[in-house]
Amino acid sequence: MSGANTFGRLFCVTTFGESHGPAIGCVIDGCPPGIAIAPEDFRADLDRRATGRSRFTSQRKEADEVEILSGVYQGLTTGTPIGLLIRNTDARSKDYADIAQSFRPGHADYTYLAKYGIRDPRGGGRSSARETTMRVAAAVIAKRWLAERCGIRVQGWLSALGPYTPTRFDLSAVEHNPFFWPDPTQLPELERFMDGLRKSGDSVGARLSALAEGVPPGLGEPIYGKLDADLAQALMGINAVKAVEIGDGVAVAAQRGSEHRDEIGPAGFVSNHAGGILGGISSGQNVLVHATIKPTSSILLPGASVDSSGNAVEVVTRGRHDPCVGMRAVPIVEAMLALVLVDHVLRHRAQCGDVPPQPRVAAGSGPFVFPEGI
Amino acid sequence: MSGANTFGRLFCVTTFGESHGPAIGCVIDGCPPGIAIAPEDFRADLDRRATGRSRFTSQRKEADEVEILSGVYQGLTTGTPIGLLIRNTDARSKDYADIAQSFRPGHADYTYLAKYGIRDPRGGGRSSARETTMRVAAAVIAKRWLAERCGIRVQGWLSALGPYTPTRFDLSAVEHNPFFWPDPTQLPELERFMDGLRKSGDSVGARLSALAEGVPPGLGEPIYGKLDADLAQALMGINAVKAVEIGDGVAVAAQRGSEHRDEIGPAGFVSNHAGGILGGISSGQNVLVHATIKPTSSILLPGASVDSSGNAVEVVTRGRHDPCVGMRAVPIVEAMLALVLVDHVLRHRAQCGDVPPQPRVAAGSGPFVFPEGI
Amino acid sequence: MSGANTFGRLFCVTTFGESHGPAIGCVIDGCPPGIAIAPEDFRADLDRRATGRSRFTSQRKEADEVEILSGVYQGLTTGTPIGLLIRNTDARSKDYADIAQSFRPGHADYTYLAKYGIRDPRGGGRSSARETTMRVAAAVIAKRWLAERCGIRVQGWLSALGPYTPTRFDLSAVEHNPFFWPDPTQLPELERFMDGLRKSGDSVGARLSALAEGVPPGLGEPIYGKLDADLAQALMGINAVKAVEIGDGVAVAAQRGSEHRDEIGPAGFVSNHAGGILGGISSGQNVLVHATIKPTSSILLPGASVDSSGNAVEVVTRGRHDPCVGMRAVPIVEAMLALVLVDHVLRHRAQCGDVPPQPRVAAGSGPFVFPEGI
Amino acid sequence: MSGANTFGRLFCVTTFGESHGPAIGCVIDGCPPGIAIAPEDFRADLDRRATGRSRFTSQRKEADEVEILSGVYQGLTTGTPIGLLIRNTDARSKDYADIAQSFRPGHADYTYLAKYGIRDPRGGGRSSARETTMRVAAAVIAKRWLAERCGIRVQGWLSALGPYTPTRFDLSAVEHNPFFWPDPTQLPELERFMDGLRKSGDSVGARLSALAEGVPPGLGEPIYGKLDADLAQALMGINAVKAVEIGDGVAVAAQRGSEHRDEIGPAGFVSNHAGGILGGISSGQNVLVHATIKPTSSILLPGASVDSSGNAVEVVTRGRHDPCVGMRAVPIVEAMLALVLVDHVLRHRAQCGDVPPQPRVAAGSGPFVFPEGI
Repeated sequence: MSGANTFGRLFCVTTFGESHGPAIGCVIDGCPPGIAIAPEDFRADLDRRATGRSRFTSQRKEADEVEILSGVYQGLTTGTPIGLLIRNTDARSKDYADIAQSFRPGHADYTYLAKYGIRDPRGGGRSSARETTMRVAAAVIAKRWLAERCGIRVQGWLSALGPYTPTRFDLSAVEHNPFFWPDPTQLPELERFMDGLRKSGDSVGARLSALAEGVPPGLGEPIYGKLDADLAQALMGINAVKAVEIGDGVAVAAQRGSEHRDEIGPAGFVSNHAGGILGGISSGQNVLVHATIKPTSSILLPGASVDSSGNAVEVVTRGRHDPCVGMRAVPIVEAMLALVLVDHVLRHRAQCGDVPPQPRVAAGSGPFVFPEGI
Repeated sequence: MSGANTFGRLFCVTTFGESHGPAIGCVIDGCPPGIAIAPEDFRADLDRRATGRSRFTSQRKEADEVEILSGVYQGLTTGTPIGLLIRNTDARSKDYADIAQSFRPGHADYTYLAKYGIRDPRGGGRSSARETTMRVAAAVIAKRWLAERCGIRVQGWLSALGPYTPTRFDLSAVEHNPFFWPDPTQLPELERFMDGLRKSGDSVGARLSALAEGVPPGLGEPIYGKLDADLAQALMGINAVKAVEIGDGVAVAAQRGSEHRDEIGPAGFVSNHAGGILGGISSGQNVLVHATIKPTSSILLPGASVDSSGNAVEVVTRGRHDPCVGMRAVPIVEAMLALVLVDHVLRHRAQCGDVPPQPRVAAGSGPFVFPEGI
Repeated sequence: MSGANTFGRLFCVTTFGESHGPAIGCVIDGCPPGIAIAPEDFRADLDRRATGRSRFTSQRKEADEVEILSGVYQGLTTGTPIGLLIRNTDARSKDYADIAQSFRPGHADYTYLAKYGIRDPRGGGRSSARETTMRVAAAVIAKRWLAERCGIRVQGWLSALGPYTPTRFDLSAVEHNPFFWPDPTQLPELERFMDGLRKSGDSVGARLSALAEGVPPGLGEPIYGKLDADLAQALMGINAVKAVEIGDGVAVAAQRGSEHRDEIGPAGFVSNHAGGILGGISSGQNVLVHATIKPTSSILLPGASVDSSGNAVEVVTRGRHDPCVGMRAVPIVEAMLALVLVDHVLRHRAQCGDVPPQPRVAAGSGPFVFPEGI
Repeated sequence: MSGANTFGRLFCVTTFGESHGPAIGCVIDGCPPGIAIAPEDFRADLDRRATGRSRFTSQRKEADEVEILSGVYQGLTTGTPIGLLIRNTDARSKDYADIAQSFRPGHADYTYLAKYGIRDPRGGGRSSARETTMRVAAAVIAKRWLAERCGIRVQGWLSALGPYTPTRFDLSAVEHNPFFWPDPTQLPELERFMDGLRKSGDSVGARLSALAEGVPPGLGEPIYGKLDADLAQALMGINAVKAVEIGDGVAVAAQRGSEHRDEIGPAGFVSNHAGGILGGISSGQNVLVHATIKPTSSILLPGASVDSSGNAVEVVTRGRHDPCVGMRAVPIVEAMLALVLVDHVLRHRAQCGDVPPQPRVAAGSGPFVFPEGI
């Protein structure tokens, strides 16, 4: 058994660290050798998830300098475990002193104490989303290997922000606005909405989507290691996620079989309602996943709670926080998607590395028939 | 690493068997000793998931007689692996002979071949939902231990059938109609709908929900073994599931933080939007999960596909099938919920068995404020 | 985590069954697809380990007919789990009735009760070496794949029987005598020794060795999945084994570094003291392992013990037993060696499947410089 | 699956770091909460294994200052992963520059290259025994918990040094001489032997033993997670170990059943040939293990080898090294013993935590009937 802080079965990422402890870090074990990697390669994705990117996200500033402690020699991964370390440099623990004895509603304060009999209250300790920094860092290596060796590329975006959903879909726009939003025409409206939200002291939920292109058919291990099941585990394990969908997701409840099943023509699949996975195995189409994130409970509006003695208290979050944590989660969703995929590529070639090439159905038309297909 | 056909980390269920092979079976490893179990104890839940229960489900008839091969001595589990076996007695493989060379749309025919280079086409082979029989059987033991030793009880129901959702919620009604439907007033309408659907040869999706009562706080292992993440893996791995939700699920995208966070009063939690899980750890409230199942692709309406040489073919399912497979999946959802819970009870007492008792927040008002709370 | 009754990380064998229960069986998960396998293929190795082969082994007669329940279609493995079943047909439980309340010295009676609070006393229940039948069966498939796809062959022999060790080494003789003994000149002496032992009602220990030829360099996963470490786990887990050695084994304590280190010449390794493993990774030389098995405690001589109330009792084994269980263990040692190797081949190609070919040191002179080199 | 650099199933230790990289470290996952731990607690055991302790060991000097990065709050473990870090401060990589292109005989140079296609030659990289520092550090926490919560104590010693074995046994002497030797009367002779060896430039093997006192009956998980099997895996995975023995070990080959089986009287077990383990489960007696370590191949005497182009070269080790690495391995053997035990305590209470108390056989006379009993 891997410990509970290890993700993956063959490409294994073990993370450690609390929000306001000395450092966070991870160990990547089982990484294929020969991948070029340098400290600066982590910069782009860490910046994408970083706090402080815009006025709509938490103002915590972390340098997030990654130190490579092991597993890389002369710029190449060696196959031995890769240790990565980031020092925490902007941890204002005093912000949290007054909540050490009470349970913030909607947070893990109570459940950590109930489980372990002890908790680190500084910034949420281990339950803070700060931990996801290391997921993103580890996935930088995964993404590179997937791209270079397998031709697989992942890209995420925001597919709902509170009451808003995109009215059109332009993937190329996603990286050019702070919302990772695929519809540039809606940006002014979103900004107004977020400004109002921030002033109100409240927060709102979001839905994130991500796509993996170039996934070969055959990834996934029925019955209990299905690709979609492992993706669900990966995405539901991201802080605040309350729903995971594959392909058409919750919409399938109201669909007919004649509508949902993706027919196949000589040119390949005709549609992609399935999100690229059939029977828990990738079909060669784009893999499409969605995660819905709850509104953060760290808001400026007072909430009712109790302290550890059971007395009623009023809790107000004074620390830094985001009105919509979903915006920062796009690189995290991408990271988990990439980590699941690299793991399944390794698992697949372990068992089936000597299977002769099979006839292949073309990926056909992708999932980009917006909005119906997404 | 457990193999891909093993579920659970400590309470491990390994299943085997194809839809039309000689038998299906499972091995339950890590089961606590001293649980009373007899072959007839499997009957009730296997009947609940069985085909042939009503005119709305597949007419395949399986005796589903469970033989206990090991791990039970004088009626009690001994702590050694429990082998269970069910012979397949009604496997009409000829029904599937004509699809051995083509890929049914929406099925795993193509993906199994793409992965393994070989597939058993008889009834879908390993990808058939017949495999879930063993999940239900294994969960009978899990449910018993959870109930007797932990006071935990699970119950599932159908929370959407195609376009229908319950207009009221009466959990006591669920076991008294073939739809596992919580609103008895809608049954005539559902029957008409299903009759029409069956005649049309088409199928429809569904949403299933399940509840675990009596769950103590503290279950779940952050960061990568969170209770909700493991539930998502378990439920998404059920055949045809395309979405998994915890608590308020996809609805949280449009919620405000002030609305979603479950406040706590001296009498306990005031609401349960979270579905009984905070930070990946159970809060002591009811655990509430949902799974959305796609409409089966095994329908009587012809569909376009290709054969293994890439030629266009038309596929019509002639075997037995269900217009809504979701109806039979209620005991399967319960089974996966129970298997995750028993596993986490064991995992929790492994790490935290010597933690002194902690102050406990009362479960408070449950999730049964229908329909908003579900 | 795999359950405790699962062996292997990728090629996973889960066994179940008690000595005198209805059946024993196993599930092989993660097996590469496309291997030809039929029920009769298990016959040879099961006979090699079977009881009743000579007057020197237990007279229990089991038909040991293997039924393939799943995972094989049209004679080929499909990549899905392979269920194997053997019914117990000659279980004389009454032989063991009188020991149900006392603890046989040297047996697991007490420890199973101490652990689980319940035990199946019939023939030792789960602790019986009957379980190893399934290891041998599972290894038949592993051996075939290793031979056909990798050119790896395993062969075991007895390297000590009580006070005797071979005076010369002829591997070709091993399969032609009931002792799996590599020195045919000693057979008459061994027979006299064993006849005397059997009459005395006592038993004796043994040492077994096994060799894997054709192992490529690169197998093994430092630091905690080293090839030799996993072999040690595999062999020490065989019933009655008390020591495991790799290469020169315990003799290395008294060796000098200048003597032990295997020098390398342009024609390859000059010697093989290491047993084919350096730093936990195979070197391309023959892999050589040894396991020492204690004398069975099931002897006809009375022994002192207590019953479950703590009263002194005298225990005499009346059931069938072997004066030297080591003789039957040769195929079991081979099986565990093969299972470890197949697992490591899969693990190696998972992580390093895209490593370019490296310069290779020839295997050079093998380990067959008897007796010093073995 | 845990990665190959993770040890343990529930108490999981993941190590990383190369001999001459920036740092070595580990992550301890699954550790029970509430254990008091501080940086200075690691000092004693790290010093016991440290280089430079006497003139008989390598003169490399490492400060080995442990930094606690996570998982400890206000001096107590919190149940979240514990990150430990040690910077490498005395890494003279130039010593190894001339062997970067050739394969040292008896080392892992060739096998690492053969496996990964790349290797870090500085000080042996990952294959260096420097990695074991983190095993010892992690075991400090394990030992504390075992002692405080379970009353289990481990102690190791050297039971053979080249041709020498102790002539008497005094466990209290072990910590008072640099050889961890239980017979103080032999120390002058050993010193002379080691001085001569050091001058000769050669090295010698050793045998180490360790004992765990206070182990309750019931630890160990048959069939594939037996306590002795897991101990064998743990010990064989220590650098240079070529043999692992439990209890009487290799001596059992020549024993009779009537001699080996440990009889039981009303006062408890009469002897402990089994080493405290029966059927893979602890019996409540002292657990006794042995590991035999090869003579290090890092010697001053030239050895024949080839370079990576296959040309014959002569290799001389110029870096720092030990004439008998076994001397430093005593705390490592203790560490692995402790790590296996803590893991099995957690595993046992996971499955059997609700088993009612059973009748207990007293541990009886321990294994200290030297030299026969050890």
